Amino acid sequence: MNNSFFKMFVPKEPKFCVLLRQMAEVSAEAAILMLDCVKNLEYEEVVEIARQIKVYEKKGDITLVKIFDELNSTFITPFDREDIHDLANVLDDVMDYMNSCAKKIVLFHPKYLPESALALAQIVDKASDIVLQAVSGLKNIKKNAKNMSRLVNELHELENQADEIYELFLRDLFANEKDSIEVVKLKDILHELEKATDATEDVGKIIKTIIVKYA
Amino acid sequence: MNNSFFKMFVPKEPKFCVLLRQMAEVSAEAAILMLDCVKNLEYEEVVEIARQIKVYEKKGDITLVKIFDELNSTFITPFDREDIHDLANVLDDVMDYMNSCAKKIVLFHPKYLPESALALAQIVDKASDIVLQAVSGLKNIKKNAKNMSRLVNELHELENQADEIYELFLRDLFANEKDSIEVVKLKDILHELEKATDATEDVGKIIKTIIVKYA
Amino acid sequence: MNNSFFKMFVPKEPKFCVLLRQMAEVSAEAAILMLDCVKNLEYEEVVEIARQIKVYEKKGDITLVKIFDELNSTFITPFDREDIHDLANVLDDVMDYMNSCAKKIVLFHPKYLPESALALAQIVDKASDIVLQAVSGLKNIKKNAKNMSRLVNELHELENQADEIYELFLRDLFANEKDSIEVVKLKDILHELEKATDATEDVGKIIKTIIVKYA
Repeated sequence: MNNSFFKMFVPKEPKFCVLLRQMAEVSAEAAILMLDCVKNLEYEEVVEIARQIKVYEKKGDITLVKIFDELNSTFITPFDREDIHDLANVLDDVMDYMNSCAKKIVLFHPKYLPESALALAQIVDKASDIVLQAVSGLKNIKKNAKNMSRLVNELHELENQADEIYELFLRDLFANEKDSIEVVKLKDILHELEKATDATEDVGKIIKTIIVKYA
Repeated sequence: MNNSFFKMFVPKEPKFCVLLRQMAEVSAEAAILMLDCVKNLEYEEVVEIARQIKVYEKKGDITLVKIFDELNSTFITPFDREDIHDLANVLDDVMDYMNSCAKKIVLFHPKYLPESALALAQIVDKASDIVLQAVSGLKNIKKNAKNMSRLVNELHELENQADEIYELFLRDLFANEKDSIEVVKLKDILHELEKATDATEDVGKIIKTIIVKYA
Repeated sequence: MNNSFFKMFVPKEPKFCVLLRQMAEVSAEAAILMLDCVKNLEYEEVVEIARQIKVYEKKGDITLVKIFDELNSTFITPFDREDIHDLANVLDDVMDYMNSCAKKIVLFHPKYLPESALALAQIVDKASDIVLQAVSGLKNIKKNAKNMSRLVNELHELENQADEIYELFLRDLFANEKDSIEVVKLKDILHELEKATDATEDVGKIIKTIIVKYA
């Protein structure tokens, strides 16, 4: 613990809010790249996009470590310690699932990506923007609570939409795709996007918890 | 926080026990439907059963949210806060895995479901009944502890049986099913039932923890 | 709670360190068996190795239960209660993934296991040894902190190596294996080994947390 004794008692509100916001920014940037990643571009282009998404994922990891280090060396936190911990973890999940999706597209090299991949990536993109807005509200939670609650509801809605798209995709895949290796590839790739939207909804749930306690 | 200041200090024992029991009831009801869901009925019937299971899943979700809201606005809880939190989450998992199983049967529309699917659904049904009995014991834990410990052991036994059935099923599937798309479908569908029994065992573990601390 | 009132206040440092070390030992022993398990031996031999790995997995489970029982009946713990809880859980994960891998080799009975399976098993073996060294350091954390930090970095390195091996394997599998049922089998089997190395890295992360707080 490198902090001086007194520093430990100084509330760290701004620091945690800034770091959590950084994690949300990284996902929002990566989500824009995700859109291109599922557009059936040339393989070399997809490889390059996946490389760039990986860079964001590493940035997110570094911020996650900073948040955990802060949690371990700070006595007074602006919100419940577990909520900050959980929020950082699910923000990391959002980024991880996008990165896994991009990586699997490169590794599996499917013959084509269906339109539902783009539809899901668009939802991940929208949801990542909303997550960024909601997390940005934390630094002045009493003022922003009402707007944040609205954003949390939107995340829930988007997750429902993603579920429906993924289900229709699966139904269609199993009914029409005869190449079973492509079935395995596509099911796995699109599942990562569906899990990314689940994770954005989880962000919403934790923010709701923080609102109940602190707004 | 809508509770008055004083209300926060009133022990909420009955409320938590009632809500946790409601979650267990929902799973027990859904488990009965699950039995029909894996009996190779007409597709339209399966779709209807899956729709009904989804209704129970939503009921469970609403109760889960109530439990979390109570936890966030209650100072004194009848058991450790984390144990109530974890118990609610795994009860939700039991329901979720059943719902996922039903949904996948509808979406994947496999050519047939093997007898091991019914054998697993029967274990999920038995285990859900035992979970309901064990959770019902919480409201008078000192009196019920001995019986609850016995029920926890039964959940452990049932999970072992489910493991064996799932393993024999996998061995048989990979040895005999030549249609690889059916392999993917059935492996996934039955896995949800196996995970449901894992979750009922997890319920048992948390109840055991609560017994150690409070009985 | 069988402990006498006073016993609850006696620090349990040695007990927790001994039990956590036992869990790490069990994985280190099983990891040696894992090496043979992926060497394309006769099926009967593989079945016997998997049986032996299962014995270790059960030993680990028993120790895990002991640790949780201790946590529930001890007021003063040598490290944060949650860190001991999490460390025990991820040590159990390492063992579980190895056991799942062995079990799947037996159940799926793949035509062959690729060289990358052995490469991954070798990393799991190395990582399990390092985990054992790192966990052994806990009983004198102030003295061992520097060496433990070095070991944590090695776990991170090994996990990166495992990721690369698994990715190259997947790329090769999807490009060259035409038997789609073998694709499903091998992807699943090697994934367990990759998850085992993830879990050893998670052990490292928790140990790092404990070092930050207590060394």
